This record gives sequence, C-alpha cells and structure tokens, in this order.
Amino acid sequence: MEKKLLKDFDHRLNYSGVNGKRLAARIQEISEIGRGEKGSSYRIGFSEEERKAKTLVKQWMDEAGMNTWVDEAGNVFGQLLGRDETLPIVLAGSHIDTVPNGGHFDGVLGVLSALEVVEAWKEIDYEPMRTLEVVVFSDEEGARFNRGFSGSKAVVGDVDAEEQKSLTDINGVPFEEVMKSVDLSVGRFPDAERNLHDIKMFVEVHIEQGKQLEKEDVPVGIVTGIAGPCWLKFNVQGRAGHAGNTPMNDRKDALVAASELIFNIPSLPAQVSSSAVATVGKTHVYPNGVNVIPGEVELYVDIRDIHESTRDKLVDLVIEKAEEIVEKHGVSLEWEEATRTKPVPIKEVFQKTMATSVENHGIRPVFLPSGAGHDAMILGRHVPISMLFVRSKDGISHNSEEWSSLNDCVQGIHVLKDFLEKVTQED
Amino acid sequence: MEKKLLKDFDHRLNYSGVNGKRLAARIQEISEIGRGEKGSSYRIGFSEEERKAKTLVKQWMDEAGMNTWVDEAGNVFGQLLGRDETLPIVLAGSHIDTVPNGGHFDGVLGVLSALEVVEAWKEIDYEPMRTLEVVVFSDEEGARFNRGFSGSKAVVGDVDAEEQKSLTDINGVPFEEVMKSVDLSVGRFPDAERNLHDIKMFVEVHIEQGKQLEKEDVPVGIVTGIAGPCWLKFNVQGRAGHAGNTPMNDRKDALVAASELIFNIPSLPAQVSSSAVATVGKTHVYPNGVNVIPGEVELYVDIRDIHESTRDKLVDLVIEKAEEIVEKHGVSLEWEEATRTKPVPIKEVFQKTMATSVENHGIRPVFLPSGAGHDAMILGRHVPISMLFVRSKDGISHNSEEWSSLNDCVQGIHVLKDFLEKVTQED
Repeated sequence: MEKKLLKDFDHRLNYSGVNGKRLAARIQEISEIGRGEKGSSYRIGFSEEERKAKTLVKQWMDEAGMNTWVDEAGNVFGQLLGRDETLPIVLAGSHIDTVPNGGHFDGVLGVLSALEVVEAWKEIDYEPMRTLEVVVFSDEEGARFNRGFSGSKAVVGDVDAEEQKSLTDINGVPFEEVMKSVDLSVGRFPDAERNLHDIKMFVEVHIEQGKQLEKEDVPVGIVTGIAGPCWLKFNVQGRAGHAGNTPMNDRKDALVAASELIFNIPSLPAQVSSSAVATVGKTHVYPNGVNVIPGEVELYVDIRDIHESTRDKLVDLVIEKAEEIVEKHGVSLEWEEATRTKPVPIKEVFQKTMATSVENHGIRPVFLPSGAGHDAMILGRHVPISMLFVRSKDGISHNSEEWSSLNDCVQGIHVLKDFLEKVTQED
Repeated sequence: MEKKLLKDFDHRLNYSGVNGKRLAARIQEISEIGRGEKGSSYRIGFSEEERKAKTLVKQWMDEAGMNTWVDEAGNVFGQLLGRDETLPIVLAGSHIDTVPNGGHFDGVLGVLSALEVVEAWKEIDYEPMRTLEVVVFSDEEGARFNRGFSGSKAVVGDVDAEEQKSLTDINGVPFEEVMKSVDLSVGRFPDAERNLHDIKMFVEVHIEQGKQLEKEDVPVGIVTGIAGPCWLKFNVQGRAGHAGNTPMNDRKDALVAASELIFNIPSLPAQVSSSAVATVGKTHVYPNGVNVIPGEVELYVDIRDIHESTRDKLVDLVIEKAEEIVEKHGVSLEWEEATRTKPVPIKEVFQKTMATSVENHGIRPVFLPSGAGHDAMILGRHVPISMLFVRSKDGISHNSEEWSSLNDCVQGIHVLKDFLEKVTQED
C-alpha cells in the first residue's frame, strides 16, 4: 500500500514541513494492525487492534514532542502547547477504529492529517498562539455495539451509563467486560467529559465516501454541514391473496401501494432544499411468495439534510405522500421513527475560512454536505466545528477498495495546516 | 367438523339420492387421516397418510359396487359400468393429498362429490349410458417433490423418468425410495398411462380458493378455463451508494426503477382481457440496508390468463413496460422466464352444459377463470374438461381455516350429478 501510495505521488507537494512519504508509511503501518479479508483492516471499537493502533499514534505524538494521555473513554490526546496557554484550545482529529473488514483511510486520514500538521510545524519551527490538541476518538463506527461515536460522546458528556450497562457486543459480550479487556472501566467512562468552554473548535479531515469531489475534479471539499438522518419505518398493510384467483379489481396489494410511494420519494427532497436526500434502502415483503399477492410491506425511508428545519419538512412531506397513497389504494399504514438525529450545520464563517485555505493552495473551493455522521457531528452539538473532505476513488468506502491518492491526502493536509494556522490565532 | 358442517345444513337439499350427512361424515373421516397443526390435515403426496386416505375411498367405492383398482402411479379408480361399455368413458374426480398442514376441502371435495353422484345413482337406480370412472389422483399439490400433478401426469403419459430418478423429497429422500415406501415402483410408474381415446372428458369439482363466488353470492361457479402462469424473473441493476453522500441527481437507484414497474403492472392486464392478472409477489433488494441506495432488485412477475394468446400478450406488455422504465432510469435489466405453463381454456359447449345444470338447480350461473392449476389442467391438454367451483369462505385455502358450507358442497354435487347425467349420454 505504501508503494502504491507513493507510485503516483507528486513530490513537489512536500513543502512547509509536510511529508508525503511519512504519511504513506504511517497509513501503511496502521493498516497492518488487524488485517482483515482481502487486505482490509479489522479494528472494531474497543478491540485489542484498535488499542494497538491508538498506542502507535500516541507513540508518534510522543516522538513529535507532544504531551500525551489516554482518557477514561480510551480517547488518545496529544497536546502541542500554544504560546498562550490560557486561550481555549483547537481540537483536531478523527478515529482509528474500522467497520469489520474496513478500509485504510476512513478515520485514519483525519488523525494522521492533524498529526502531520504538528510534524510540519515542528520542522518549520512554527509555534501556534493557541494550544492544538490532536485526538483519536474511540469506537466511532459503532460496529461492536451497534452504537458508535463512543469516544466523542464521552468527551461532550453524552454518556448514558444505564444504557451502557445493558449493551452486549456482536459476540454477546457485555459492555463492562469489553471495557475491562482494554483496561477501561464502565464506572469511570463518563469522567472523559471535558469542559467544553476550553475548546474553541473541532476540526476533522475525512474522506468523502461519495463521488461529488471526483465529479467536480478537486482533491478536497469544504463541508457545509452534517446531515442528521431521520429514519421512518413504514408498515403498509393490504390483503394477501392468491395471485391467480384474485381479480385485479378486488386486490389490496401492499406492494403496489408501497411501490407508488418508493417511486414518488425521489421527487420530494428538491421541494425543501438542494442538499436534502431521501432513500428507501431496506424493504421486506410478506409473505414474499411468487404467486401470493403481498399482504404486507415494511420499508425504511432514510431522510437527511444539513438543516433541521428542511430535514423535518421533508419528513413531513414523505409522511403526507405515504398517507395520500395508502388512502388511494385502500390499504392501511403504520409508521414510526426508527431514529432522528439533529443535523449539524457548519458556521458560514468557518466555511469561508476553510475556503480561503483551499484557494490559498490553488484549489477551486467546492462546498458539499456530509451525508454520513462523523465525530464532528457529536462535537458540533456543543462547540463550533469545521470539516474538510478528501476525494474518494469511486466513492467506495467501508471495504478494502477504499482509496484516496496520496496527492489528494497531502493537499488536504496543506489546507488543514493553513486553516489551523488561522484558527489557532488569537481572535 | 362433521357437527359444524351439519349445524347449518338445509336438509331439504337431500333429494335424488344425494345425502349431505354421508358427505359430512366422509369429509370428517378423511380429515382425521394425517392430523396436522391446529386441526389441519397433513397428507403430502406419496405419504402413508395419503395412501391411507386413498384406501378408504377405494373401500367406499367397493361398497358402492364399483370395480376398483390402483394404477402404477398410485391413482385410485372406481368404475361404474355404463349401459354401453364400448363408448368412451367419462372421468370425474380430483386428489386427496394436501399441502403441509392443509385444509379439508381442497381435492377431497372433488373426489367425494363424484363418489356421491355414484351413491345417489345407486339409490335412485339410475344407470348411465357411458361408463363413469371416479378417480383419486396422486400427489396433486407437489408439496413433497416441489413438482405436483404426479398422478394426472402419469395418466396422460407426461412422465419424465430421468427427472423422477433425480428427485429427492423435502427430507432428502430419493423419489425411488419414496415410491418403495408406498409399494410403487419408479420403473413401472409410466405404465399408468391410459389410452386417452377411451376418455370422453374429465370433470373436476374443486373449491374456488378465491372470493369471487362469495362476492357474487352463489354456491357454485362455472370455470371458464385454467390460467397457466408465466413467471418472469427480472433483475434490475443500478448502482449502490451511501444514502447520505449521494445527491438525488447522481443516483441509479434500482429500487426506484423497480417500484415504477411494480406500480404500473396492475394497469396492464385489462389491456389484454378481463380475466388476465399480473402480480409481483416476491422481491429481493440488495444490499437491503437502511442507509444504502439499492444497487440491485430481483423481482418475479406472475402473469396468468385462461387463453394463451392474451397471456402471452400480457407477458410482452410487462417486458416492454420494464424496458421502457429501466431506460428512463438509466439502470439495466436482465430477465428470464422462470416458468411458462400453457393455459387450458374450457370448451364453450361444456361451459354451457354446466351452466344449464347450474340453472336447473335455481342457481344464477356465474362464470370465472381458475387462477390456480388443477389435475383438470393436466387432463385438459389431451381431453375435453369441465370444472365446477364451490364457494370458499373468505377465499382462504391451504390451511385449517379452509371452509365450504355443506349446503354449498351439496348443491355442487347436485349440479355435478345433473352434468354427469348429460355427458354420460350417447351424443
């Protein structure tokens, strides 16, 4: 992988202390921890593999001269003291856990980018005014307990101790035992909470996991907000019957009604905003026999936007459309919210600052929403955030094919460095 | 069950030798052979239970003075010689096997109705001109080998000996062993073939397994034909993607395209005939994740009509519509025929004869297609057939709730008797 990364690397991107070869070597070294199927990485949250990767990053932080520590949620911090230690700090980083058989850039790139800025500053003898802390959050993906954002939630004080006690992982092991296995304690977990007044903002570099930057032909993009998903679970109930013995005009076909809804959904997002999306990804038809008229269809609608008001308006539109359609078909409908997460818009002032950093490196500024959740979403509910996306090859993510070129990664680091130099200034 | 059948029985329907109490007792006695879950019957093809039920019917045939035999496919025949033994015979009957945990009328009613006509003729000293044979076909449901119509296919000479040798039943037991267990032989199975010139026609009484007669408020209905199904398997291929990170205008959502097709299908049958139907009963969405744009949808369309020309026209219309829709959505389509069975229309002359028999008993003649396959479908490819449906409560079938009132059953027998008295005449 290191070789593949370096093969097409433009070495002219090594300037101001940023070093592509070092980054490639580090991506390679982390990728080897928890090797999964087909060259993937398998480092689910709170695994020995995740801890090993965090320990390695902590060691690099130590070598870079940072003050380092691990908090009660297993988050790793590296602190580069600023010239004025009394000012609120700037936090930058991401996570290092993966989904099962995941890729090598998701999370890892955000952590190593922030660390690479520190390395660069060291090489060019740059001292920020504010303190910069680089963070590796625990268990962002949530592959282990079907939750996620465990580390970032602990930092902002969003821990439900009762819920944690009831959790068991994908292998049926209780949360408490899993914590013990990596020398953490359920009781002390909430102590990871930070005084958020001490944090000026959080910055996260992340791979796009989509194809918009590829389409726009730019290496990086400025994130406008993180779209919080609302998942609606619909249950359409008609009447099952024999496909041969029931005339067309005496049917209550749940699938025909559900299909009209699914077919109509794509026209709704544009009614609320240009960034809104709605998707039916999961459906079950009952009884699902070739010669049986479907009596029941269960379907999930995933609805997202970066602004809560437009997202919620879209939720209402989808429900209205569903009610209108089932009435027309004489079938019945039940629905519930399976989840509703607040979107986190990014302040325009930080979008603009990031855009300036992008332009300073000769890149056309492209703005795009983040459809997926990130640690920045959790932090963003409490402190200002900023996010920079790095182009993903074919938009592929969460498997070994996940790829961002070293040129794109390093350009992202230059932009991050520029941005951090601005936001670590005294205002 | 016997009690429940007799509870609402109108004893005035006992005339011309037809006896509701005898029928109820016989339905009861057969229902006890192979008792399944929740009072259902479990007599799959070539089981000891099916054989026991066939042996019981054969005994009743013997007691009614018929010549009886079991052929090489396990079909039971009872022969009532006509006054002119040189004329082609009339065959009447159905099957006595059930689906797992099936009902008490499907098949059984057809067998017992034909036998009851013989009993009635005996009581009123009626001798038909042509010989009447009552038949109990083996393994109509096909629950055991995922085939069906084993007995009727053997009679018409439609046996694939090679295929039979490769079959294993739902428990993995080879066809040959199953045959041995009920004293049949794979090698001799094809010897059940009859000289079809000796058969003038086949008549089958069967429960409707639908709700049209209930809706029309008549006890019986004249079947216009047996709709042969054509099953099309469609595979719609789009492009999977993250539901959050893919803008609405950059999607190739296989489910949205498939939904437009499913939603449009119900409008197509009326374009070819009033009896045609088309149903999407089975679909699979891949990968079927709430937050993943569906990359692939597999769906089956079940298309039926009683005339091959209109059924095939409808097949073409469905394929055309699918091709039109996928082109619009920029997704791709593969399709194949999973099955294509020839429909068997019933000759108008026999529909009219049956209608006269229906009217003779003060019943308004209602004509309806059979959406499901029956032994009559197999016979109908070679000899003229006729079918009479008996009203099914709520259209429920293939489980213990399957029900036809004794009044309806007995009225069906009177109609059948009238019909048989006509068709056993010399032309």
